[in-house]
Amino acid sequence: MNPLPHVVILGAGYGGLVTAIRLQKMLNDQEADVTLVNKHDYHYLTAHLHKPAAGTDRDDNACISISELIDDAKVHFVKSTVLEIQPEQKKVVLEDRVLSYDYLVIGLGSEPETFGIPGVREYAFKIRSINSVRLIRTHIEYMFAKYKLEPHRTDYLTFVIGGSGLTGTEFVGELADRLPDLCKKYRVDSSLVNIYNVEMAPQALPMGLPSDLVDYGMDVLRRKGITYQLSTAIKECTPEGVVLGSGEFIKAATVIWTGGVRGNHLLEEAGFETVKGRVKVDEYLRDPRHPDVFIVGDCSMVQSPEGTPYPPSAQLAVRQGANVARNLAAILRNQPLKPFQFDYKGTVASLGKHEAVGVVNGKKVKGRVAAWIKRIIDARYLLIIGGVRLFLKKIT
Amino acid sequence: MNPLPHVVILGAGYGGLVTAIRLQKMLNDQEADVTLVNKHDYHYLTAHLHKPAAGTDRDDNACISISELIDDAKVHFVKSTVLEIQPEQKKVVLEDRVLSYDYLVIGLGSEPETFGIPGVREYAFKIRSINSVRLIRTHIEYMFAKYKLEPHRTDYLTFVIGGSGLTGTEFVGELADRLPDLCKKYRVDSSLVNIYNVEMAPQALPMGLPSDLVDYGMDVLRRKGITYQLSTAIKECTPEGVVLGSGEFIKAATVIWTGGVRGNHLLEEAGFETVKGRVKVDEYLRDPRHPDVFIVGDCSMVQSPEGTPYPPSAQLAVRQGANVARNLAAILRNQPLKPFQFDYKGTVASLGKHEAVGVVNGKKVKGRVAAWIKRIIDARYLLIIGGVRLFLKKIT
Repeated sequence: MNPLPHVVILGAGYGGLVTAIRLQKMLNDQEADVTLVNKHDYHYLTAHLHKPAAGTDRDDNACISISELIDDAKVHFVKSTVLEIQPEQKKVVLEDRVLSYDYLVIGLGSEPETFGIPGVREYAFKIRSINSVRLIRTHIEYMFAKYKLEPHRTDYLTFVIGGSGLTGTEFVGELADRLPDLCKKYRVDSSLVNIYNVEMAPQALPMGLPSDLVDYGMDVLRRKGITYQLSTAIKECTPEGVVLGSGEFIKAATVIWTGGVRGNHLLEEAGFETVKGRVKVDEYLRDPRHPDVFIVGDCSMVQSPEGTPYPPSAQLAVRQGANVARNLAAILRNQPLKPFQFDYKGTVASLGKHEAVGVVNGKKVKGRVAAWIKRIIDARYLLIIGGVRLFLKKIT
Repeated sequence: MNPLPHVVILGAGYGGLVTAIRLQKMLNDQEADVTLVNKHDYHYLTAHLHKPAAGTDRDDNACISISELIDDAKVHFVKSTVLEIQPEQKKVVLEDRVLSYDYLVIGLGSEPETFGIPGVREYAFKIRSINSVRLIRTHIEYMFAKYKLEPHRTDYLTFVIGGSGLTGTEFVGELADRLPDLCKKYRVDSSLVNIYNVEMAPQALPMGLPSDLVDYGMDVLRRKGITYQLSTAIKECTPEGVVLGSGEFIKAATVIWTGGVRGNHLLEEAGFETVKGRVKVDEYLRDPRHPDVFIVGDCSMVQSPEGTPYPPSAQLAVRQGANVARNLAAILRNQPLKPFQFDYKGTVASLGKHEAVGVVNGKKVKGRVAAWIKRIIDARYLLIIGGVRLFLKKIT
């Protein structure tokens, strides 16, 4: 008997995880061996990380153990770090072993794009993993504790967030909710706290939002205490703060960079043709030169019918994962492939507790209603990956 | 009508607070004006600080609002920092005003004694106030968060405690209880964590404990993971760790100094004759040259009948406060003073949860029984200062 085709999925982010979960439902054990590789033994909700980063939610609420989602009789899970992808040899080098594949799904996520700004890589925090947001949360509280013993150091109470796209905006909303609690706990005068959101573009909030919603969102966040510095570059990040394009220096013990992401460096290193680390995939989400390699999530670039690439999002990655799983099953069964089509539902950006703003199915939403829709979107994802049991566990 | 005599009490630690509470019970409002000055608007239980420092208890459990203890119709509370004591002018300079007194009670507590060891003042944490223990607690958790992103930095998981007297011992006991929780929370292999307790003396635990109890206590703490370095000096403390007397360097991101205390520097600066910052008081706890100045707690030195000074303790300070209040009332009523007598009850050192060791009324105690006695001692103090209401609030 020939060995079964081996499907290897790299990364258990939104795209890779949904691929694995769909495959375990669709395939029987005579059709393929499926291996899922991930650095951690948990999946985390990247789109939820702004909350544990600020400390407004527990980090385990952004975490789901992979063993709760994956049936190990159907999908073999390997906790390891990918070191190298060798598409010509159809091999993947992990830190502890080498895997051969017949079909590969790459969902290795993104890395911060620092645009070569000196010091951002070294001195700015990034919102990118459970570990990195725990560092931010513990750092913020540590700064309050330090301030109490060195009350001349108001830079301990100064927070600079570089970038005001979706992540930056959602984070400052949570931070503005969190800091008054810390002021109360540490008996710090809240008027000494400063949150700067520095953005290159002339307006804040995710690109593509209608301008009345941008105004609404910025107004909400300004009232919560955010100081916007728009049309402003960060020229340098130092251990003491940031230098702005104007030459002005903001002394701040906490700088958080949300200014951009690029695809995982492993794809470029493997010889894939990339733009910002992303591979422009074909209509079946495959690398154009390697039809056995599917790429999902932040490592992939998908053109919209208008010819512009969709911005990377959880929503897109989830749809990609479902499409890849379907097409892998089709390949194994010698059935025709189905092109990927993305029915973009819109974006809702939370602005802290009970406040959000966005566009859903072409309709503008804001305020409490938008915050409520945001919760439904989050809950829907839990239903997709874990069914009702996970939904009830995380939501209630 | 002549103004009433003005009694000023500096510091709301154990000694000063008990003086104030007793005076407000004993005096009627025609006998004296009483002013209590304290840096914070809360009293903290210095002997309890090892728990919030390690994170095994909330810091507000070591805090009591002064307004809960002091009746402002009877004692005037001033939240301010003392800058200078002028015993010849009978004045006290605060940061925002000058107070004149007829009788002064000094209970300004202690400061770390670093014995001139380079770097201990700058780089080692101290367990001395609510603010300082919050810094330690947040720092410890921050180190775990940092370790997760830099797993080669095992110095983030290395803790050096200088000194193994009462504070050092009680702190390492709590730390050994706390770190496994942090290992679990941050998914850190607990075998990578190291706690070193470095002590100049050839044995650990508070001086004067019988050697079988010392052996018992060290055995308990060793089993909890403490590594003792006895008969060992700390030669230098650096931002990266400590240099031992042998020249050995322990790389550690957290160094906590509990090696000794001395009396508040303000007494020496005021011209009082001091030894280690402490004033050798007369039998009525007064400065020998200023019969209008009483000194209680860690700023005072009281000889035992055997001629050796009692070690500073909460127990001693509480008794002193009661004696000073009684004698102040006697002075105001032209009654004879009563010499201070200290009926030393003994010492119990906690060794973490459900474990303690000590001598009470001449009897050796250890294990769960000792831990239970320790709780009774703590509870008794709450009854002394706040009555049944405070007792129930804090204990239940």
